[in-house]
Amino acid sequence: MSNIAESTAKKLDRVFNPRSVAVVGDKQAIGYMWLRSLSHFKGKVYSVQIDPNELPGIAELGVENYPNLMDIPGPVDYVIASVPRAVSPKIVEDCIQKKVGGACFFTSGFAETGTEEGIRLQQVITDLASKAGLNLIGPNCVGLYNPEIGLRHTEAQAYGEAGSVGFIAQSGTQATLFSLMGQHHGIKVSKSVSYGNAVVLDSTDFLEYLGADDKTRIIGMYIEGVKDGRRFLNCLREVASRKPVLIWKGGETEAGARATASHTGSLAESGVVWQAAIKQCGAIRVETLDEMIDAIKTLLYVKTGIGTRLGLIAMSGGQSVAVTDTFAKAGLEIPLLTNASYQRLASFFDIIGGSYRNPLDISSTFFMAANGVSNLVSMLDVLDQDPNIDCIALELFPAARPLSHDPEAKDPVLGAVSDFTEKTGKPFVVIVPEVYSEALASEARERLMERGIASFSSFARAAKTLKKLADYYQFRKEQSQGKGDG
Amino acid sequence: MSNIAESTAKKLDRVFNPRSVAVVGDKQAIGYMWLRSLSHFKGKVYSVQIDPNELPGIAELGVENYPNLMDIPGPVDYVIASVPRAVSPKIVEDCIQKKVGGACFFTSGFAETGTEEGIRLQQVITDLASKAGLNLIGPNCVGLYNPEIGLRHTEAQAYGEAGSVGFIAQSGTQATLFSLMGQHHGIKVSKSVSYGNAVVLDSTDFLEYLGADDKTRIIGMYIEGVKDGRRFLNCLREVASRKPVLIWKGGETEAGARATASHTGSLAESGVVWQAAIKQCGAIRVETLDEMIDAIKTLLYVKTGIGTRLGLIAMSGGQSVAVTDTFAKAGLEIPLLTNASYQRLASFFDIIGGSYRNPLDISSTFFMAANGVSNLVSMLDVLDQDPNIDCIALELFPAARPLSHDPEAKDPVLGAVSDFTEKTGKPFVVIVPEVYSEALASEARERLMERGIASFSSFARAAKTLKKLADYYQFRKEQSQGKGDG
Repeated sequence: MSNIAESTAKKLDRVFNPRSVAVVGDKQAIGYMWLRSLSHFKGKVYSVQIDPNELPGIAELGVENYPNLMDIPGPVDYVIASVPRAVSPKIVEDCIQKKVGGACFFTSGFAETGTEEGIRLQQVITDLASKAGLNLIGPNCVGLYNPEIGLRHTEAQAYGEAGSVGFIAQSGTQATLFSLMGQHHGIKVSKSVSYGNAVVLDSTDFLEYLGADDKTRIIGMYIEGVKDGRRFLNCLREVASRKPVLIWKGGETEAGARATASHTGSLAESGVVWQAAIKQCGAIRVETLDEMIDAIKTLLYVKTGIGTRLGLIAMSGGQSVAVTDTFAKAGLEIPLLTNASYQRLASFFDIIGGSYRNPLDISSTFFMAANGVSNLVSMLDVLDQDPNIDCIALELFPAARPLSHDPEAKDPVLGAVSDFTEKTGKPFVVIVPEVYSEALASEARERLMERGIASFSSFARAAKTLKKLADYYQFRKEQSQGKGDG
Repeated sequence: MSNIAESTAKKLDRVFNPRSVAVVGDKQAIGYMWLRSLSHFKGKVYSVQIDPNELPGIAELGVENYPNLMDIPGPVDYVIASVPRAVSPKIVEDCIQKKVGGACFFTSGFAETGTEEGIRLQQVITDLASKAGLNLIGPNCVGLYNPEIGLRHTEAQAYGEAGSVGFIAQSGTQATLFSLMGQHHGIKVSKSVSYGNAVVLDSTDFLEYLGADDKTRIIGMYIEGVKDGRRFLNCLREVASRKPVLIWKGGETEAGARATASHTGSLAESGVVWQAAIKQCGAIRVETLDEMIDAIKTLLYVKTGIGTRLGLIAMSGGQSVAVTDTFAKAGLEIPLLTNASYQRLASFFDIIGGSYRNPLDISSTFFMAANGVSNLVSMLDVLDQDPNIDCIALELFPAARPLSHDPEAKDPVLGAVSDFTEKTGKPFVVIVPEVYSEALASEARERLMERGIASFSSFARAAKTLKKLADYYQFRKEQSQGKGDG
């Protein structure tokens, strides 16, 4: 990495790992959301507030209040400013004078509003911070999340444990949603940042930082626009060669681009340019938060080297036609198995009432038979051994009774699926559609997740994700083979 | 309708509304699923079984057993046959002799297996039934569902109430899934049928029947192939001119077509031919069961005349960029509002911290303010009055506390949304994404559904559905305007 990148990373280390945080301007009207979000912060929390009406509420939370940032006795590593926009320049000046590690401005109403006053104020704080080298995050953002030390931006976020996934989001909503939804999909955040209008620190700075962060194995990004396209792409190429980087570009459409202007004031490049650049840099393009979560879950829990030739086991034939269509539309193959595989299947699998080309059909009464589970194990093994198959997907309907919550409990189907996941050398996923109830299906997916098994709520989501990652692994393979040529 | 159609409808009336049902060959190995499924049937249920080992289990269910169909004292309107395939010809002969209203063969192992014996047996039962005019449904299917009289094919299906949606599925799995998943989306079945290999009665017969059925306002179909394409398309065009018909074609891809051959033995036409035919007939094409359910839910609960110009209210700006992209990618417009609308918005809506082009952003703290709900009401009213807007979508995050289960309870947001749904002249949908938990979101969607408000779990699903129905209403409008020309 370049010296500049190293120094950026060093500069940001203090603010991503603060030992003291000051919240400026938290108030009753927003439920003291900032001070509350820090209720489990492993360090000092200070409040800065001059409105006498707010002081009792702050005292009730047990937080020391000071009328001014300057008055805080010790050093302040991270400032969260939630103040009227007109006050922002004064707070930036205080941050500079106090030599804080960095400051996030939740305050909005700047260039994104398109108003003269908003644009002017944004310029003032940009100039002040740039000149002084202040690590300004935002404005118009929710800033940092570091679960290990309890630095959060909403009380609903998990804390206490360091995950392995970094997230960089221009939008605070997307940063929040990713951390909350990710919890249900086995995705734990290492560090994340929402950076709004990006007047000083931009996506590239954060990508450099998380690229160099050993705890961060995978990086997801939600971007509306970047300031220095060339610098961003160089950084992306370098980081993506070492760890998976997933990019969701907000404002890909013309209408979406108009919305970004009023959201973070970003000038959006065209979707096509972005798509080509993401691909050339070896990053993974996603188009929604669901796709982001599905792809990261698969990177975390499914064996690498996903290929395009799927072996499928589906519940009942009608479903298996639909499944085949879905995978084929996504650009995957569902090839015939070898003759040896069909011979093995014929030795135990009753052709009447099911079919076993590919997908292999299992009827809804499959598990009622005494040898249902052992037949499933054999079928999985056939796919595992078959050289025509790269990757295995199994559909399970959640049984009328929920799968057991106790990981030790001996649910025979769950046990068989768990054992297979351990044993197989091939990428393997489970699909649990919402059949009898959403609640049952989502519970079943959580039980699978507890055992480290990636599952999806629909074939369409599984197919799209597997294709995306097959392309990614193919690209990486070509890159590593072609390394000598470059 | 033609005389033939009328006579088909008359012929099928008895079997769709049986007063007596006989199950032939139900057994312990499949948990007596057929007799159990009839536990709430409003009529006589008989069993036909000769295996002495099965008789105690049948007696335990309180069902009269006879060794032969002929021995049943009264008339039998509907037979469900779950027998070894080799016995099928004998049972078909018995049905003919007993003059039953119709018979569904759950038995599989016929032409769909590609085996010589399977093909031969299928020909035998086809010839027998055709010659005698027996209403044979299947084989390789689960047959009829008529909730009003408790005629079901699985115990999990609802009973006691007649819905308004008919469903015709070549696959038993899809018929079952539709009825079960539909329950969570406010979709109640009038009558449904799964018809498998379609050797005697085919999709067209059922389409004619449900087309003429007054209780059936909307018809969904899952088709793998049809025997007489011309007859099918003529019938489809006629029925679709009177009520919405949605078609999901299984086996659209080459791989999927291969799977249909081994599922119901259907010869699949190419996807492109189907797509064109569905469109020309004025039916609605869907590609998955989720799309089927979303579109039917919208037909049931959203005002007709959906147009392409959307007015959106989204929670927070980052989301609103993503939302705009999603709707634009689906082919919908998110136009600017009129100046009059922006003036009205400016009178109560704080531009700082939100934006109000389109989408209108409401932040996550929006409802914390005392006037949050009344501002939402005003915003909805602005969109309702704006001539640039055809159709309104509102994003709601489920609150940390669940929405109230009691429809009378005064949840202010839910109340405002309910009132608006009543009042507005424009199509209106709600999006409730899975943020804090799947359980909370699905509960919120159920609360909305109880009040007759259509909601979706993602913007992508809402956008795809609205575009599909906008196209449909546009087609119907053009058809009715052009009627005089034809």
